[in-house]
Amino acid sequence: MNDTHPTGRTRRPVSEAAEAVLYRPVEVLDHGSVTLIDYMGDDESIPNAARMSYGRGTRSVSDNEALLRYLIRNKHETPLEMVQAKFHVKLPIFVARQWMRHRNSYNELSARYSVLDREFYIPAPEHLAAQSRTNRQGRAEVLEGEEAARVLDLLKAESARQYASYTDLLAEEDEDRDGLTRELARMCLGTNIYTQFVWSVSARALLNFLHLRADAHAQYEIRAYATAIIDEIATPWLPITMRAFADYLRDAVSLSRQQADLMRALAAHVPDGAIDPADFGLKGRELRELMDKVPGLEAKLKG
Amino acid sequence: MNDTHPTGRTRRPVSEAAEAVLYRPVEVLDHGSVTLIDYMGDDESIPNAARMSYGRGTRSVSDNEALLRYLIRNKHETPLEMVQAKFHVKLPIFVARQWMRHRNSYNELSARYSVLDREFYIPAPEHLAAQSRTNRQGRAEVLEGEEAARVLDLLKAESARQYASYTDLLAEEDEDRDGLTRELARMCLGTNIYTQFVWSVSARALLNFLHLRADAHAQYEIRAYATAIIDEIATPWLPITMRAFADYLRDAVSLSRQQADLMRALAAHVPDGAIDPADFGLKGRELRELMDKVPGLEAKLKG
Amino acid sequence: MNDTHPTGRTRRPVSEAAEAVLYRPVEVLDHGSVTLIDYMGDDESIPNAARMSYGRGTRSVSDNEALLRYLIRNKHETPLEMVQAKFHVKLPIFVARQWMRHRNSYNELSARYSVLDREFYIPAPEHLAAQSRTNRQGRAEVLEGEEAARVLDLLKAESARQYASYTDLLAEEDEDRDGLTRELARMCLGTNIYTQFVWSVSARALLNFLHLRADAHAQYEIRAYATAIIDEIATPWLPITMRAFADYLRDAVSLSRQQADLMRALAAHVPDGAIDPADFGLKGRELRELMDKVPGLEAKLKG
Amino acid sequence: MNDTHPTGRTRRPVSEAAEAVLYRPVEVLDHGSVTLIDYMGDDESIPNAARMSYGRGTRSVSDNEALLRYLIRNKHETPLEMVQAKFHVKLPIFVARQWMRHRNSYNELSARYSVLDREFYIPAPEHLAAQSRTNRQGRAEVLEGEEAARVLDLLKAESARQYASYTDLLAEEDEDRDGLTRELARMCLGTNIYTQFVWSVSARALLNFLHLRADAHAQYEIRAYATAIIDEIATPWLPITMRAFADYLRDAVSLSRQQADLMRALAAHVPDGAIDPADFGLKGRELRELMDKVPGLEAKLKG
Repeated sequence: MNDTHPTGRTRRPVSEAAEAVLYRPVEVLDHGSVTLIDYMGDDESIPNAARMSYGRGTRSVSDNEALLRYLIRNKHETPLEMVQAKFHVKLPIFVARQWMRHRNSYNELSARYSVLDREFYIPAPEHLAAQSRTNRQGRAEVLEGEEAARVLDLLKAESARQYASYTDLLAEEDEDRDGLTRELARMCLGTNIYTQFVWSVSARALLNFLHLRADAHAQYEIRAYATAIIDEIATPWLPITMRAFADYLRDAVSLSRQQADLMRALAAHVPDGAIDPADFGLKGRELRELMDKVPGLEAKLKG
Repeated sequence: MNDTHPTGRTRRPVSEAAEAVLYRPVEVLDHGSVTLIDYMGDDESIPNAARMSYGRGTRSVSDNEALLRYLIRNKHETPLEMVQAKFHVKLPIFVARQWMRHRNSYNELSARYSVLDREFYIPAPEHLAAQSRTNRQGRAEVLEGEEAARVLDLLKAESARQYASYTDLLAEEDEDRDGLTRELARMCLGTNIYTQFVWSVSARALLNFLHLRADAHAQYEIRAYATAIIDEIATPWLPITMRAFADYLRDAVSLSRQQADLMRALAAHVPDGAIDPADFGLKGRELRELMDKVPGLEAKLKG
Repeated sequence: MNDTHPTGRTRRPVSEAAEAVLYRPVEVLDHGSVTLIDYMGDDESIPNAARMSYGRGTRSVSDNEALLRYLIRNKHETPLEMVQAKFHVKLPIFVARQWMRHRNSYNELSARYSVLDREFYIPAPEHLAAQSRTNRQGRAEVLEGEEAARVLDLLKAESARQYASYTDLLAEEDEDRDGLTRELARMCLGTNIYTQFVWSVSARALLNFLHLRADAHAQYEIRAYATAIIDEIATPWLPITMRAFADYLRDAVSLSRQQADLMRALAAHVPDGAIDPADFGLKGRELRELMDKVPGLEAKLKG
Repeated sequence: MNDTHPTGRTRRPVSEAAEAVLYRPVEVLDHGSVTLIDYMGDDESIPNAARMSYGRGTRSVSDNEALLRYLIRNKHETPLEMVQAKFHVKLPIFVARQWMRHRNSYNELSARYSVLDREFYIPAPEHLAAQSRTNRQGRAEVLEGEEAARVLDLLKAESARQYASYTDLLAEEDEDRDGLTRELARMCLGTNIYTQFVWSVSARALLNFLHLRADAHAQYEIRAYATAIIDEIATPWLPITMRAFADYLRDAVSLSRQQADLMRALAAHVPDGAIDPADFGLKGRELRELMDKVPGLEAKLKG
């Protein structure tokens, strides 16, 4: 590692994998990035905090991973607040606007005080989705050929012209005339200009962010950040937590009472012993929890 | 209604059912109660706020109930923050301690300033559960006969003695000696003494509270309060919201990836057309959402 | 009142003044507005909640106003959370970005789903401040004459051109080609385009917002909203609270230990009895609190 | 240090002083303690986050300490959220009840699952305050002699008897009869029994806690914890922040408009040049801020 952050000695929990990614920007979009700049705790911190709550009661769950998975599966999420992270994020304003709906802690660059750099998000051609005519919420097929070129040209020209207007309004280099105050001049810039912030967040709020923003319904651009955090930072740092996140949050299925009733009815058609829970990686407490939810299922299971 | 709160005129949303329960204590446990003392908004306020977010996009969901159910089913919960309630609650301290883990807004009676009344929670005989020897978390069978009588006698004697000690320490009626400061004298009282607070809470936080505290895993005493709020206050006031709460939160089933995979595998054993979704009250968007979650299910459905 | 909101009957606290402004937009900036759309509680709700906390202890403060002022002066702010308001706000995006740093509850119009209207904030000529060359944080003198005209022309031209690009990208009216998805097309619009949101906020958070955003250091545009809320909505609705806000928050002075020591030293130079506290509206508890803070002051006071 | 926490290597900010107190319980009251068990960041993390917000604008405030003091003096507190701490606290329940009014993150030992240890808070004789007969909120003189002995005997006897009842109700050692469930048996214990929790808190919320709970109006017992944190943990770990805390929060004076007006009037009686700001450690920006608050003060200052 060629950065200049010195190594010190600590008696706090250390995650070697988090240390390896610390201060190393993960590139996202055309000019964006997300960087872990500090952290507190690791996978073990979460079951350790839960053992405080449950006291001697958790002796039987001697395995950290089993306890951590139990907590996340059953939405006992306060122990996740015992782990914290701090990120530096560089991103377009329209993505920052979605991000900051999560009421965590932010210190954002202010264009009242600083002149913004000339960096605008221009989508890669493969992300130039058309507006769906049937569904206002998703993207439709990707624009191609002449239409794509036309859109890209227009976006680039807009950004260039906006920045020229911004510079003109500011008149920072002009000795002969006063510029418009920065806090007003900025307002002619599109929300694809890049901003940056420091984000302080607990593991609980982080998982919630990743759950909502790595989801297929989230806009591609913020999904790119969420995916980068999952793959490059959170999974190395908190591998057990992130496996539980995948199984119990990201890939979990929530059924309404009515939907659950229909699914339970399927069981009646299944021959006894036809299903081997081992095929699904199910055993122990998690299998018993399913049998509790689906009366009659037990008979259908093998062994 | 024989209370003295005058009736005024307002252009705010009015819920007749909420007006009917306003200021009327719902009795809980032996000396406890929960009372709605103010509210803001009704069932319509929630889809109205969502329409602000989704703009013209929600015109197609013309039906308030369908939109409200969609929001809750898909955990789009911020519109629920647009509805607020304020409760007066009288409850034992050990229940208040569980309640206040919900980080809402409280103004609690302080025993630093006031002398507490001589009211202690003594469980009804049918709630005198024994400690399970196999599971530390639930109650086992109910104590009966001589053992129950012994426990009740001991609890009553403890409470009486504690209150006598409290009074003795305070020496409020005693002209001849100084009493111990109230803020210290209170500490000899058991957590079954009653306290009270005012609780200000959004509908979002209220549903979360009711979901966790009306659950079978919650301690009986706080469950009694949650159930009273559901039955006597929230359901009359917000009937559509509370039906969605039942279907999508209280009676919903969350399946891990592994559990969902096993349930999906059941479908392969079901003859085509064997399941009629109408038997489960499923149609439209909610049925399509289930078919999206369970590949191959569509063929098994009738019609 | 010619709007169509029907009047109903309620036993909740009613503020006649709040009823009078309900649903009536207060105009702010060139196309903006702020409208009270619901409220819970009034001035009396705050001391009433405090009396719950302090119990019989507050009997001696029989006067609502005195208790309310005591609470705010001494930063006992939780009773303010017992009063809630809901606003509809229409405002430029750059103002919304400052506003939403206050981590309250919002439902904002989403340009992912809706096409934004052609409304941009263009400052009135008297607010076209130049950038101070000595202080990055405030505005300097107002631009005038040719320079002002040039800036206004540029801002108007930018907005017109941006909206033309937006429309072109969307191609909503064009049968022959696909438009760019709304969630991307929006990003070429400057942050002076108008958005809108519903804002649910407690009186505590509202006072904090007004304190920071009506302050002379806040940017003029958000100050215009804060001032409109104070003058047209909050003061009529909560007159006693807002007088306390002015005296103890807006116009209060916080002195560091060092600054306070210097101010205390002034007293040594003042002849005994030279200062009449009545000239400053000071008496009773608030005067005693000042004497506690400034040793030796008592002798300097008349009477 | 003879504890067994291994030392690792990290590139995160390290505070040597925090490392020295890590995992080392600071004793409070008769059986209580507070222990720093993890931390994130140090004094420099706060101005660094502020520099992100203010961007190039803060180049002029090159000195970390000056910027940190400016932030705290002017209540720009979000950068304080970039620093986090985690504590283990052992304390009587009545103190925990006050502590948890601060809506931070807690994992508390639950007496539903664990049997509590036989540890009760019994005040030291010098803290056995009498109840003031004139002011319900503070303690009066200390009880002495026979009265003190009587109170101590009563408190000790109560605690012993309560724990005997608790043990009797639980019947954990008794093979012949069922015990009452733990979640009910606990309720006969007074709130002077010890509990424990893990507390995760940002530096912003920590300073707010310390400001309110180290204050002379706070109950002695929680003040003992706040003072221990200030002296033994926070000051070594964050020395610059805690000096600013003392000057701008703990020892600051807030004056209402009326109080401020009276204090300003004192200046008229002071001869020109009579006050030397250096005597009060005032210069530069902080002195100018005071002159802005007190018109006419400048003439009274020396030099």
